[in-house]
Amino acid sequence: MTRAESTPAGADPAQADPAQPSPAQADPADPTLAELSEIAVLQRIFPRLPESDATLLGPGDDAAVLAAPDGRFVVTTDMMIHGPDFRLAWSRPADLGWKAAATNLSDVAAMGARPTALVVAIAAPQHLPVSVLEGISDGLREACAALAPGCGVVGGDLSASDTLTLAVTAFGDLEGRAPVLRSGARPGDTVAVAEGGNTLGEAGRGLALLFTRAIDAEGAPDAAAADALRTAYPRLLGAQLRPSPPIPAGAAAAASGATAMLDVSDGLALDATRIARASGVLIDFESAALGEHPESALGGGEDHSLLACFPAGAVLPAGFRPVGRVLKLPAGEPAGITVDGAPHLPGGWDPYRGWDGHAG
Amino acid sequence: MTRAESTPAGADPAQADPAQPSPAQADPADPTLAELSEIAVLQRIFPRLPESDATLLGPGDDAAVLAAPDGRFVVTTDMMIHGPDFRLAWSRPADLGWKAAATNLSDVAAMGARPTALVVAIAAPQHLPVSVLEGISDGLREACAALAPGCGVVGGDLSASDTLTLAVTAFGDLEGRAPVLRSGARPGDTVAVAEGGNTLGEAGRGLALLFTRAIDAEGAPDAAAADALRTAYPRLLGAQLRPSPPIPAGAAAAASGATAMLDVSDGLALDATRIARASGVLIDFESAALGEHPESALGGGEDHSLLACFPAGAVLPAGFRPVGRVLKLPAGEPAGITVDGAPHLPGGWDPYRGWDGHAG
Repeated sequence: MTRAESTPAGADPAQADPAQPSPAQADPADPTLAELSEIAVLQRIFPRLPESDATLLGPGDDAAVLAAPDGRFVVTTDMMIHGPDFRLAWSRPADLGWKAAATNLSDVAAMGARPTALVVAIAAPQHLPVSVLEGISDGLREACAALAPGCGVVGGDLSASDTLTLAVTAFGDLEGRAPVLRSGARPGDTVAVAEGGNTLGEAGRGLALLFTRAIDAEGAPDAAAADALRTAYPRLLGAQLRPSPPIPAGAAAAASGATAMLDVSDGLALDATRIARASGVLIDFESAALGEHPESALGGGEDHSLLACFPAGAVLPAGFRPVGRVLKLPAGEPAGITVDGAPHLPGGWDPYRGWDGHAG
Repeated sequence: MTRAESTPAGADPAQADPAQPSPAQADPADPTLAELSEIAVLQRIFPRLPESDATLLGPGDDAAVLAAPDGRFVVTTDMMIHGPDFRLAWSRPADLGWKAAATNLSDVAAMGARPTALVVAIAAPQHLPVSVLEGISDGLREACAALAPGCGVVGGDLSASDTLTLAVTAFGDLEGRAPVLRSGARPGDTVAVAEGGNTLGEAGRGLALLFTRAIDAEGAPDAAAADALRTAYPRLLGAQLRPSPPIPAGAAAAASGATAMLDVSDGLALDATRIARASGVLIDFESAALGEHPESALGGGEDHSLLACFPAGAVLPAGFRPVGRVLKLPAGEPAGITVDGAPHLPGGWDPYRGWDGHAG
């Protein structure tokens, strides 16, 4: 199917896709990707990308070569897709790069590893101004510098696509430690969270604000309204659009003997249920430790806090605070979570069922 | 923008997107992704994926852990996007998985490394039948088994997107050898290619056949016509849709002292020009060594042959045959290629300029 065929005769193409600039909007200082060669696009991006201390051979050949000094490496991959994962009216390009880096760095940290490098594949519409890719590159650099100094981009891929897509793969060094799995929690363990620059539940509340108030009269995503929300609710919007997970706390938790850990990305309740099921235990939260909004802390999503279990009596590393404890699973009971001793449903997000089909 | 908004009132939605099945086409044995949970989709995919011998910790946690026995690893990433990279009317799902694996394995091999593992992120429309993802998984498994036994999928990500997208990141083990770069060719070297199961130029000719003959009366991609072409031209269509690069030849070339190497993905002429420029040399091809169609061998694209330079007198490893030699660059001349001593333009493909915007 061609783009032209998707706009039946008589429809106004400018109405059909507001992300498609009209020719009158062309900016000679900010050409579209279609107006530049791939090499010209790369020349604008490369100087903005962060360098990695682990690079043995960087971009420019068929593949990069990275150091893995302990003979192993941690790897995780995660995509951000225009529509289900972000709206261009709400996220600035640098926010996209930042969040794509931050979420992948958080998965590396959750294994107890120190992030060393990223590879980044970007697929972008041909009408996109190159400044969007420059902004994404700036966000990748800013996130690495702020969250995981020494981590950088060692390779990537540029493609054309009707859907702006970022696919990040992140690597980490376990520095001789065993990886911290989800399955190691033991009855008696202290359950703790490290929230970094955000607070559990803020990211989810920021998203709810965007969906209900960063829209125009027809319900479409609205950039000016999002800007106003950023000013009015900087913590909630920042947690959603530009999260600051506690990356070094992951390696610190491993060094302190954490028995289980994960990145809280789908809501504390659901992610704690994952640890409980993998470990065959109950996890009991103290609601008083979950802040002013315990239900938003439990049900949120995209927090990118670290949830970890530590042996009873262990000194928690900096950044962690206790929020509950691990209990023995009564015979015949399903593994799961309780809050102040009462059963609690996991909840959570599913990408194929949860996306409403909107982009904007 | 919502999907509904992209179909102006009065247009027939079934006309607007032929890839969108009508409710009457629903198949209870092959549900769409929207009808299944993410967990149910993963349960259908996982048993089909190949396992990696390098896995220390596989899927199921925040990240995987892989062995890197020589303290380094090779990494490359490449996307395949519905539209610029494939048409669903021409490629079967297993072809997509096979090609996504094969092209990334080839980049690893081109460094002189043995491929060890892949991570695979897939973004797919919610109306897609789950059998498409099962087919992609089958293709990933078949390609690893045929081209790089012991290599497997160690992690991934599933997302929703309006554009079917595969992002593969591949890893390799240099087994103590130095990586083979593009910059090491020296005057006097023998230039050789390893073509694996294909022949230079076949993939490009297969693509030209699809564009000109696997279409219906309106010029839209046509599955029945593509099937007929597969029967009539199995080598050309196979080279394009399901390439068989010579993966073990990469490590063999490194072990035999290759001075420079790359994966021929954008046409032999352009890729040889890359080695020539990186090494500051001329590369002269013998047209008689380039088969019956020297111009299609030089100008093709997506061959995924290995092009390598070897010191004069070196015994070429199995699978390689000589096609030219490296010459000293005359003072003041630009690095590049010649054919039978005559200058030749590089040519080549650019994703932002080369895609015509069609999918199908």
